[in-house]
Amino acid sequence: MSTVLPPGVSRAAFNKACEEFRAIVGREWVFTDETALAPYRDPYYPGDPMEHTPSGTVAPINVEQVQGVLKVANRHGIPVWAVSGGKNFAYGGAAPAMSGSLVLDLNRMKKIEVNEEMAYAIVEPGVTYFDLFNHLQERKSRLWVDPPQPGWGSVIGNTLDRGLGYTAYADHSSSYCGLEVVLADGSLMRTGMGAQEDNPTWALYRYGFGPGVDGLFQQSNLGVVTRMGVWLMPAPETFAVVQGWVPNEADVIPLIDTVRELRIADVMPPSTITNFLRGMTSATTKAQWHKGEGAIPAETVERMKVEFKRGSWGVRFGLYGNEDVVAAKLKVINAELSKIQGYTSKATRYKRGDKVAGGDLLWAGTPVLSFGSLSWIEGVGAHVDQSPILPMSGQFVHDFLREKTELLRQHGFDHFVSIFNTSPRIAVNTASLVFDKSNPEQQRRVLTTGHELIRHAAKYHLGMYRGHLVDMDLAAGQFNFGNHAMQRFYERLKDTLDPKGILSPGKQGVWPKSLRTARKGGAR
Amino acid sequence: MSTVLPPGVSRAAFNKACEEFRAIVGREWVFTDETALAPYRDPYYPGDPMEHTPSGTVAPINVEQVQGVLKVANRHGIPVWAVSGGKNFAYGGAAPAMSGSLVLDLNRMKKIEVNEEMAYAIVEPGVTYFDLFNHLQERKSRLWVDPPQPGWGSVIGNTLDRGLGYTAYADHSSSYCGLEVVLADGSLMRTGMGAQEDNPTWALYRYGFGPGVDGLFQQSNLGVVTRMGVWLMPAPETFAVVQGWVPNEADVIPLIDTVRELRIADVMPPSTITNFLRGMTSATTKAQWHKGEGAIPAETVERMKVEFKRGSWGVRFGLYGNEDVVAAKLKVINAELSKIQGYTSKATRYKRGDKVAGGDLLWAGTPVLSFGSLSWIEGVGAHVDQSPILPMSGQFVHDFLREKTELLRQHGFDHFVSIFNTSPRIAVNTASLVFDKSNPEQQRRVLTTGHELIRHAAKYHLGMYRGHLVDMDLAAGQFNFGNHAMQRFYERLKDTLDPKGILSPGKQGVWPKSLRTARKGGAR
Repeated sequence: MSTVLPPGVSRAAFNKACEEFRAIVGREWVFTDETALAPYRDPYYPGDPMEHTPSGTVAPINVEQVQGVLKVANRHGIPVWAVSGGKNFAYGGAAPAMSGSLVLDLNRMKKIEVNEEMAYAIVEPGVTYFDLFNHLQERKSRLWVDPPQPGWGSVIGNTLDRGLGYTAYADHSSSYCGLEVVLADGSLMRTGMGAQEDNPTWALYRYGFGPGVDGLFQQSNLGVVTRMGVWLMPAPETFAVVQGWVPNEADVIPLIDTVRELRIADVMPPSTITNFLRGMTSATTKAQWHKGEGAIPAETVERMKVEFKRGSWGVRFGLYGNEDVVAAKLKVINAELSKIQGYTSKATRYKRGDKVAGGDLLWAGTPVLSFGSLSWIEGVGAHVDQSPILPMSGQFVHDFLREKTELLRQHGFDHFVSIFNTSPRIAVNTASLVFDKSNPEQQRRVLTTGHELIRHAAKYHLGMYRGHLVDMDLAAGQFNFGNHAMQRFYERLKDTLDPKGILSPGKQGVWPKSLRTARKGGAR
Repeated sequence: MSTVLPPGVSRAAFNKACEEFRAIVGREWVFTDETALAPYRDPYYPGDPMEHTPSGTVAPINVEQVQGVLKVANRHGIPVWAVSGGKNFAYGGAAPAMSGSLVLDLNRMKKIEVNEEMAYAIVEPGVTYFDLFNHLQERKSRLWVDPPQPGWGSVIGNTLDRGLGYTAYADHSSSYCGLEVVLADGSLMRTGMGAQEDNPTWALYRYGFGPGVDGLFQQSNLGVVTRMGVWLMPAPETFAVVQGWVPNEADVIPLIDTVRELRIADVMPPSTITNFLRGMTSATTKAQWHKGEGAIPAETVERMKVEFKRGSWGVRFGLYGNEDVVAAKLKVINAELSKIQGYTSKATRYKRGDKVAGGDLLWAGTPVLSFGSLSWIEGVGAHVDQSPILPMSGQFVHDFLREKTELLRQHGFDHFVSIFNTSPRIAVNTASLVFDKSNPEQQRRVLTTGHELIRHAAKYHLGMYRGHLVDMDLAAGQFNFGNHAMQRFYERLKDTLDPKGILSPGKQGVWPKSLRTARKGGAR
């Protein structure tokens, strides 16, 4: 028996609703006992886990069952927290924003359709990057996936939360096309060209006729996505995975500016830029260099750079296609980046079908299971991410990150910098607070430091790329133009499309009317 | 004094509202007399112009005036039809869907801000492609525009109606970023990162935090866009404009398939594919080859092909960037397209700053004023477009277009085919019914044939890319999944965001509650 209930719902009413859910999905697919609910807690949660405790879970297997569940939820006023794969680790996992929500677990919906000619797949929410990859391998498809790291998450879940990958299709928000959505009232619609029955361009043309609504269902609690088209890149004839390094901290200025120009000129595809310390998390452990609490000292980092013969910043990307085109692009890229004194790089070249080195798999459309920075520290590794969007402008990035390093150091955290340059003009600055989950003092520091990181970004008028459960409201609260006009717009949509407020209350700081007092830490 | 009034509004009430509009925008910027309203009629309208007659126009000069106008419109229940430039020719010009609407003319809002480093501009609705181009020329900017043809239209207007261009930024719907929107109640918001005050990534990162709403304001009557970010391509080091030809009608099959693969492999940027007759509209006139009414006979077309030494299908595109990269790409493209027997091509190469030939200007970021097909016929040339979205699949495109040629021939129209391959997997099949506006019989035929073209596309389960006033409702009515679930969703949004139904009623087939009976020709 679950320890929490939805707000304002009696145990008896909850039990009655669960009986109705069981009638829809089958007895074995509704869980309310504590043991079964454990996987729906956030394994990296830094605070009191009771803050985000589900009252139960229900796991439908098809769209009709999803519709049925939402109709019952509406009737009984049971809030449901929809998760596709629930692997949203570092942002809250499968745990709901509001305790007492029932997790709507879509993991069992695993259908995949592939169109080889037009190079896309249509997937259900339970399909992970591994599932899709394996499916493509089995049918000897010519198509790649673009996996995030780790690749165990849902393709739909990652895309709807605006996840990022590594290949030419790294900006997942620009390579999905066509949604099937169950609205809060249980009604079904298809977006874009799918709004026309049997339209063959549903997964090909993104815009439809009339207003475009796909964006409404990203980082959203306005509907439950049950199918999605995703464009897939055909395995290229040849490809090269390139790793470059620049020696000094301040070289990030020309590095960022040069990459921006190469990206805008369509010579360089999406790239990731990382600081030295981020690269070290897979090469060594903190304990080998620094004992005790607190951030690793700057002098030690400099000593490590000498020892590992690595520069202060790395840039990594793939180049895909015809051999001559790849070679010509690489020549331009090397010429431009070599204007930074001390730039070094190596390119590993592959032909279609070659065996790919482990470290290059992500750039070759192959999902991997690795948890990067978690082994850096001792204890039970976990991390929480606050990731602002920066302009791809060297001086700005340099100044912002330098101040952020100081802030993190004051709070005893090492600064791991990753920049996903998924669109030419922006830098998604994913950043992890890595901590030992078994250490309550570290947990507390993660919570307060996370909030400070959001306020620090706001000082630069920057907003976040996603929101962790612990600071979703705070992150949403920074969007203050017109006295939070955007938030009010979201609330108007929410109140119209989900008047009972049963769908994922609190997701991305959007609360239904009845629960708006639950919002915490926002600026409003 | 205007001949029509908004439905249900008395002359006295209308006059009173106009006085209030004058108090906001100045006396000289509200027009209600017939002479001043003439430019707000659709100059290419094929039917009774009284069907789409404005009651007046109001022309604010800044966002505060737009807000004021909408507040007054709400109070008096005056429907306003928002136009940016009003040059939406072939789809209705500046004319409103519903007679009696007051045109909200945003032409006077002409501010431009340019960011050279990050390669974008923020424009107001009155800024045309020529305005932006001239502004960039004057400040000796490194940045190009991507003009549609003709280039006299508004950048915002074209983009919001999902217009298309010719360079690497041809898909205008994927190269705008960040909107400022006045909602129907007169409230103001900024979307994406602009929802945060002074956020430097407003025009850089498209998605924002929480649901993405930008799409809601394309082909829409849910808000009035008063500012928009638009990405601009820096003038490339070198570029080549390439024109290829394939000899036979059936060669469109391998042509489409090859272009799709080259596009997906990121070797070829956006391209336009045209049939022989489309190319002829700028080279000769119909009268030189065919006398009298009716479509030009197939045998004559074959004779013309011999005479002009041109193939049945042309493909045209630009290649941009470093000289070696361009050369390597062109080599791959030529190798692939040369697998089609009889493929010929010529490439014109330019360096940055070179004088560009007239016919290549569109591919060099330079707007032109040309009206393509209008001189093909005798009389007063006009055209109406019905443009379905096709999958970029050779056999499908071939079969569909062959049947469409027959249908047009039966109705006495020549078939001009343009395919804008702005995204790798789709073919926007823009198609013009060219007619003599002074000929009532031709006008009637345009109306009936336009409707048939939409129904013909629907037989293939295809929808339209835009909608002309004469068949917007019919085009919207084809989106029939879930018994028109998308339309109902639009209506829910409309009724919430514009409860009085004053904003552009009927735009793209979306009518406010009070006027839903005005919908004509839809399938519902």
